[in-house]
Amino acid sequence: MKLRVDVMLKDGVLDPQGKAIGHALGHLGFADVGEVRMGKVIELELAETDAVKAVETVRQMAEKLLANLVIEDFKVTVVG
Amino acid sequence: MKLRVDVMLKDGVLDPQGKAIGHALGHLGFADVGEVRMGKVIELELAETDAVKAVETVRQMAEKLLANLVIEDFKVTVVG
Repeated sequence: MKLRVDVMLKDGVLDPQGKAIGHALGHLGFADVGEVRMGKVIELELAETDAVKAVETVRQMAEKLLANLVIEDFKVTVVG
Repeated sequence: MKLRVDVMLKDGVLDPQGKAIGHALGHLGFADVGEVRMGKVIELELAETDAVKAVETVRQMAEKLLANLVIEDFKVTVVG
């Protein structure tokens, strides 16, 4: 079973990478670009075949390793 | 209009970050973890209200700046 974790900075946490991308897009001539936020995606294959258990396992992975819960939120989805 | 670009390494391109996450998960006691791939997400707000035009603009952004097409694939989706 393939799962996906999206990790994004929480609202209100300064995102310097997103800001840099926004500025670079402006320099490249893209106008009217509002807020830009950057995050990361982790896709993983688990041997588990029960979707509920797999999501719970990946939530634990996110809490322990993949996300920094002080500044980041995460979302787990089953991809296939 | 809010759009999202997912940028992942192409299949076959070595992903050292994904490998490192896979090893770390093993050390934390998570067994049966298969392949782990890591990518990035960029969420952006555009003033454009036409979804087709907005997606086309963001595709250009991805080709020019957000993704390295030699080693990365990207996908643009409208979030809201």
